[in-house]
Amino acid sequence: MKLPGQEEFEASSACENIPTGEMDSSLVPDPNPGGPSDTDSTEVGVFKDPMLFIQLNELLGWPQALEWRETGRWVLFEEKLEVGAGRWSAPHVPTLALPSLQKLRSLLAEGLVLLDCPAQSFLELVEQVVRVESLSPELRGQLQALLLQRPQHNIRTTGIRPCWGFTDLRKASHDEDTPLKEQHQNALRLKLPPGVEAAAVLAGELGFLAQPLGAFVRLRNPVVLGPLTEVPLPSRFFCLLLGPPTRGRGYHEMGRAVAVLLSDPQFQWSVRRASNLHDLLAALDTFLEEVTVLPPGRWDPTVRIPPPKCLPSQHKRLPSQMREIKGLSRPRGAPAEDRHDHGPHATCPELQRTGRLFGGLVQDVRRKATWYPSDFLDALHPQCLSAVLYIYLATVTNAITFGGLLGDATDGAQGVLESFLGTAVAGAIFCLMAGQPLTILSSTGPVLVFERLLFSFSRDHNMDYLPFRLWIGIWVATFCLVLVATEASVLVRYFTRFTEEGFCALISLIFIYDALCKMLNLTRAYPIQRPGAPAYGCFCQYPGPGENESQWTRTNLKNRDDILIMVRKVFSDFSSVLAILLGCGLDAFLGLATPKLLVPREFKPTLPGRDWLVSPFGANPWWLSVAAALPALLLSILIFMDQQITAVILNRAEYRLQKGGGFHLDLFCVAVLMLLTSVLGLPWYVSATVISLAHMDSLRRESRACVPGEAPSFLGIREQRVTGLMVFILTGISIFLAPVLKFIPMPVLYGIFLYMGVAALSSIQFMKRVQLLLMPAKHQPDLLLLRHVSLNRVHIFTAIQLACLGLLWIIKSTPAAIIFPLMLLGLVGVRKALEWVFSPQELLWLDELMPEEERNITEKGQEPEHSFSGSDSEDSELMYQPKAPEINISVN
Amino acid sequence: MKLPGQEEFEASSACENIPTGEMDSSLVPDPNPGGPSDTDSTEVGVFKDPMLFIQLNELLGWPQALEWRETGRWVLFEEKLEVGAGRWSAPHVPTLALPSLQKLRSLLAEGLVLLDCPAQSFLELVEQVVRVESLSPELRGQLQALLLQRPQHNIRTTGIRPCWGFTDLRKASHDEDTPLKEQHQNALRLKLPPGVEAAAVLAGELGFLAQPLGAFVRLRNPVVLGPLTEVPLPSRFFCLLLGPPTRGRGYHEMGRAVAVLLSDPQFQWSVRRASNLHDLLAALDTFLEEVTVLPPGRWDPTVRIPPPKCLPSQHKRLPSQMREIKGLSRPRGAPAEDRHDHGPHATCPELQRTGRLFGGLVQDVRRKATWYPSDFLDALHPQCLSAVLYIYLATVTNAITFGGLLGDATDGAQGVLESFLGTAVAGAIFCLMAGQPLTILSSTGPVLVFERLLFSFSRDHNMDYLPFRLWIGIWVATFCLVLVATEASVLVRYFTRFTEEGFCALISLIFIYDALCKMLNLTRAYPIQRPGAPAYGCFCQYPGPGENESQWTRTNLKNRDDILIMVRKVFSDFSSVLAILLGCGLDAFLGLATPKLLVPREFKPTLPGRDWLVSPFGANPWWLSVAAALPALLLSILIFMDQQITAVILNRAEYRLQKGGGFHLDLFCVAVLMLLTSVLGLPWYVSATVISLAHMDSLRRESRACVPGEAPSFLGIREQRVTGLMVFILTGISIFLAPVLKFIPMPVLYGIFLYMGVAALSSIQFMKRVQLLLMPAKHQPDLLLLRHVSLNRVHIFTAIQLACLGLLWIIKSTPAAIIFPLMLLGLVGVRKALEWVFSPQELLWLDELMPEEERNITEKGQEPEHSFSGSDSEDSELMYQPKAPEINISVN
Repeated sequence: MKLPGQEEFEASSACENIPTGEMDSSLVPDPNPGGPSDTDSTEVGVFKDPMLFIQLNELLGWPQALEWRETGRWVLFEEKLEVGAGRWSAPHVPTLALPSLQKLRSLLAEGLVLLDCPAQSFLELVEQVVRVESLSPELRGQLQALLLQRPQHNIRTTGIRPCWGFTDLRKASHDEDTPLKEQHQNALRLKLPPGVEAAAVLAGELGFLAQPLGAFVRLRNPVVLGPLTEVPLPSRFFCLLLGPPTRGRGYHEMGRAVAVLLSDPQFQWSVRRASNLHDLLAALDTFLEEVTVLPPGRWDPTVRIPPPKCLPSQHKRLPSQMREIKGLSRPRGAPAEDRHDHGPHATCPELQRTGRLFGGLVQDVRRKATWYPSDFLDALHPQCLSAVLYIYLATVTNAITFGGLLGDATDGAQGVLESFLGTAVAGAIFCLMAGQPLTILSSTGPVLVFERLLFSFSRDHNMDYLPFRLWIGIWVATFCLVLVATEASVLVRYFTRFTEEGFCALISLIFIYDALCKMLNLTRAYPIQRPGAPAYGCFCQYPGPGENESQWTRTNLKNRDDILIMVRKVFSDFSSVLAILLGCGLDAFLGLATPKLLVPREFKPTLPGRDWLVSPFGANPWWLSVAAALPALLLSILIFMDQQITAVILNRAEYRLQKGGGFHLDLFCVAVLMLLTSVLGLPWYVSATVISLAHMDSLRRESRACVPGEAPSFLGIREQRVTGLMVFILTGISIFLAPVLKFIPMPVLYGIFLYMGVAALSSIQFMKRVQLLLMPAKHQPDLLLLRHVSLNRVHIFTAIQLACLGLLWIIKSTPAAIIFPLMLLGLVGVRKALEWVFSPQELLWLDELMPEEERNITEKGQEPEHSFSGSDSEDSELMYQPKAPEINISVN
Repeated sequence: MKLPGQEEFEASSACENIPTGEMDSSLVPDPNPGGPSDTDSTEVGVFKDPMLFIQLNELLGWPQALEWRETGRWVLFEEKLEVGAGRWSAPHVPTLALPSLQKLRSLLAEGLVLLDCPAQSFLELVEQVVRVESLSPELRGQLQALLLQRPQHNIRTTGIRPCWGFTDLRKASHDEDTPLKEQHQNALRLKLPPGVEAAAVLAGELGFLAQPLGAFVRLRNPVVLGPLTEVPLPSRFFCLLLGPPTRGRGYHEMGRAVAVLLSDPQFQWSVRRASNLHDLLAALDTFLEEVTVLPPGRWDPTVRIPPPKCLPSQHKRLPSQMREIKGLSRPRGAPAEDRHDHGPHATCPELQRTGRLFGGLVQDVRRKATWYPSDFLDALHPQCLSAVLYIYLATVTNAITFGGLLGDATDGAQGVLESFLGTAVAGAIFCLMAGQPLTILSSTGPVLVFERLLFSFSRDHNMDYLPFRLWIGIWVATFCLVLVATEASVLVRYFTRFTEEGFCALISLIFIYDALCKMLNLTRAYPIQRPGAPAYGCFCQYPGPGENESQWTRTNLKNRDDILIMVRKVFSDFSSVLAILLGCGLDAFLGLATPKLLVPREFKPTLPGRDWLVSPFGANPWWLSVAAALPALLLSILIFMDQQITAVILNRAEYRLQKGGGFHLDLFCVAVLMLLTSVLGLPWYVSATVISLAHMDSLRRESRACVPGEAPSFLGIREQRVTGLMVFILTGISIFLAPVLKFIPMPVLYGIFLYMGVAALSSIQFMKRVQLLLMPAKHQPDLLLLRHVSLNRVHIFTAIQLACLGLLWIIKSTPAAIIFPLMLLGLVGVRKALEWVFSPQELLWLDELMPEEERNITEKGQEPEHSFSGSDSEDSELMYQPKAPEINISVN
């Protein structure tokens, strides 16, 4: 079944009519690759035309009181006037009935089509439109008067007192071509990007017409058509659809159809370049070929579909010439590459081995040096100020928590003061020197576990802890320098999701286990007063109030998502701070005898009697400084893994970092800081994932002008060194807040750790797959990976991961714990071995590919699916959607 | 633009071709009005044909290894074979591309169409299909062999060890026409309702064909076509779409298009009755006219749309003759009636005044008497047993909670023992006598408030409480009998949502306030041991553990909705029981000195020294028995309001009760029980909303065979008297569990009440509107009422409700509290007065109409919207959707 005119269209596609000159001018490559036009989701990047604001004015009140009233508007999505409520509906995906499109096509085919109309005002335009042969002169006059009648808009002005309801413009006595005050004050205007043009669609039933009257006008030079559109924009298109009264709401639906067509980027592109009626109809036919059809028995057409989170990619819809110019045509098998946008391999050109000693470091320094001045200038934005405040609070919370735990783990050899001082010093130095200055340093869980092991080892053997630790630090720094020199960081390409998730799950479990153990231990140390027992002091232990409250705050806020979305953001940003404050407040209010953070009142090391500089030997024999190399080797592996897994996550493609990372330089900085902190007896630091992600998130640049229904599009991150620096200077100043910190009860901190562990565990795909193990197939979510990998294979992969995790846990809990970092490396080996068990296609969905596998696939030109699976098209589309970070390690 | 063949279709619609005889047989009115066919949501009720199971077998592997593989299936929704994962996708709304429908139309128009084909086996069918002129004899042979080749299905059998992956049927050596064992064991078979027919669509590319080959066959008598379809069902339709290789997946998409067409109830209806090609094409064109079109720039066609909660109504799509026969055509303005389906007016024919003394009661008794035997026989179903267990637990919890509060409010004049005894006796009697035996009686909040007032009044004036209470009971019973005699219950038609919500909000607030007050008071009575203070006994008060836990359980479960949906149901059903157990467990584990429920160890009244029968005067002067009439009048109003508001909610149309309610009879029973409980000094009882709703919910009858993606449809409630009776007999037996109850700490019960108050508050529309007061327009949800009533008017309505609530609260808190029941009646007056402020249209959306307004609107034939609003069509559709109870008063 061909639609009339379709045959011709297939022979000469609409876009072949474009004059070459115009084509060139509209298709020059984007000069600013980081700008908004680089994004997939904004169609401006694909179709370079100005955005259109489309308005439907409907003729109502026939026959007594004819009036034009705006009843619909479109930019990206449709908004409908709720006449009863006198307000605009929420933006929604427009749905049409097929007959209205077909009727529209016939009406346009028989009607007046003026392309490049030279009219300079609405009056001129109307005069041209009514000059139709079929109309008698008398009718022309009547029609002209009717068209010039002022329409009623439902304008919400930007004034302090919003002007609700209908602004009756008929009463105003302005000139026809001058927009009214209300139009200029229209709040919608601020939401439209600059350069927007308007299109006005006038539709309705008119009793004195004998036959339908259709007119489609493209103005050569867009002009503001007086009060025709609610926003005084220059109008490019004008469409008139009038006819004798019919059953149903035919002209209304046809008007909507024109509006929806004009809001389609490809139709608009074609119509802007159409030279005759034939082109116009061909564009309509192309649109019809690409619509999605929902069957009437399974879909209620009155349902309003909310705008999708991201608009469908328009790449595929580009006319073929345009696609070639823009270099957008993708080879077969390309989905695999798209999918890997978020992996480290595609992201980091710096991960190429140079083959020279310190070659990577030199490259990193050279590359980052060019950005160095801009790293300070780019911070001149008010957004950076709020980012500083937010990250400062998070960092202080972190320093308190880890300081408390550290003091606990080392029997007071270090404490909160060291934690604050170390965070301030190490963080500031890192921000000034590092390759990725958006990273926030922190003492993290695995290092703490290692430190605890070291401490109990040295205590058991009567060693002097801090000098021993100093030598370990010296050795670690040395090993790390060797790793930098040999460009070992390029190996991060072998860290796939398997490794990241295994690491993350283990850390989370350690957190949960430790928090629970500590709290149970507290019941022994501070027993609960039972009624019968003699009262020797009473302590009441809350079951993890911190954890409980933050859970509650979160879920409570989630449920009322739409209600208090401003408030919500603030609460969720500061949820852990609030939880701490609430826990401390309750503790103080009830006057409970909980164990508190031990905070020194003076600025001196927590361990009584020691100097700030750690003595190199203390009471230890000299050979311990050599023996320290062994634990240092293990710690180096741990530091390398911890630092680089975090760096991989932070430098992912979805953050669109312009200045790149610096894996080698970062590791070098960590090595230097290792030395410094060991000498001063401060905690050891590596990059912390979650807090750094929060930092980046608070520095997001987003498109400002958001048309109704559009989500703000992500433009990039304000990459600079100032916010981090400020955060750590403020942290340093906070050392003198120490007297306040002593009010924090330890159970509150344990609660936060319990919560972090649970949150981190639940955010990883691994946990989703573990849940799949227990779920009947019917209730399983529609995960992409389940569409492509058999459930049995998924279960086997999960079981292997679980086994690895169990093994790591056992090692961690036995005296063999010290070789734990080696086992972490073993994870990469296990992942490598999985290549014998799973096909590359399966690993592509379950994990990511390792560098060799990727090369193989690219060379063979293999497709990830069997050729008749037919799902390529679907997946490649889904892959275009912006990725959210897949792992959210809340372990910092 | 007309589609070919469309012109003719418009002249003679497809359904006019139906032979009259067939028409009659297929359109007889449903003999069983309570059966599944009475529901709007099952299309069987509208289009009487058997359901179709449609399967798409695709020809894959050209040119080397040709094989047929099932790649899609449809009943209501589409399921797609995930080839990589070897499993079926989740059911989703099928989406098509328009060109595939158009290509299909041309192929069918040029192809072979056999209607009423007499083939008795697959071989015969294939022989008929390949007998096409365009094919050479040689090709016919090749094609026949190919078609007879066994297809590969992805069958999941019902055996204990599910047979995953592909069952390679080719290796089996069965006869062509005998279905295989795997087909018989197919688990899908159990999900299909009886009488289902199959349709097989075969599509693919075949290199040796020179031109496309399309065939559509309707079998005169459906036969099982051997292993063609995965379920061995008799096939009614067979469609073959083959052709030379093309670009894209043309034949696959055409095959999907045929399948989607056949799954459309109206298309299927027409095709079953089509007599020639022209009818077939006309049906396709009708389908095309009704499809919903989504624009390509705004909707990603690869998105899988999950099945809607309820299927769109097919009423509008009925051919007009059919609609007349079924009496389904609705007059203009009808939406108002639909909307009122859930109100009491449409529901209850018993609410017509007879005009005779006790006329309503006599009617009720007469009507219910006819159902009385079935009230016992209908309980013969295992579902009733589980309902008993569930409601028993809820009732016991309720009895404990209210008993505890009652003992508290009356200083031990009554207690848990009375609560249990009263619940058992009153409940059992009510179940045997009442008009609505599904109702569960309970002492509810407002009566408790009143009782507390009475008690403190009698204590302040040194009266003997129980004798005073006895006289109040006698008077209340008398007044209630007067209300029954005068048929006052017909006035419940004046209880609109305004009244229900005002009442509910007030009760919820009382609950919240009381629970918080009590807990704060506890801190005074049982002070928390502070470290410095002298230890004179230590008590640790949890901030409402019961409340906290049930919140947590609920939200936690909600988040993992999909994961543990079985587990979830059990947890949510028993959440309050679990919360109590957890609270008690923690209390016992920590050995806290909380105040516990006071439970007598013997079966004797809680008040020491009193007999079970309350003495009629005690120490009170004789005239108090007369003076008791005044408080009794107020209590009567309260009881009437409380009982009848609950009864209105329980008898709503959405529960589809077949046996009807009995407002007069219920009130009569309440009056009798009032007398009985007053004489015995037991609590007073009225119907409890939430627990009765839970009771009804546990007795839901639902359609069993659920095809993929379909929600089970609600058939009705097992209306009987046995479950209630059993529950109260068990409650009576539980009196001897009293020794166990003394472990329940009071704070746990307060926590439950706090939770109930919060839950009830948040479930009512009034609270949604209160939230609207604070919400910027952009973030407001897309409520139907906001589409039709201006925001200002909504705010005014909400403000009036808030003012009423405030006034009620003030009265309740002052010495004037005793006139509180009068003020409740005042709510109805305020609602009446609102008619001067709001238009009937506005009240229709904000509330419901009162009887007079309704009559006015119906007489005037007014439409609820301005004639040009154009939203009628939308709303009337939305109104078809099954309603959930709008109020969820958790006050029992």
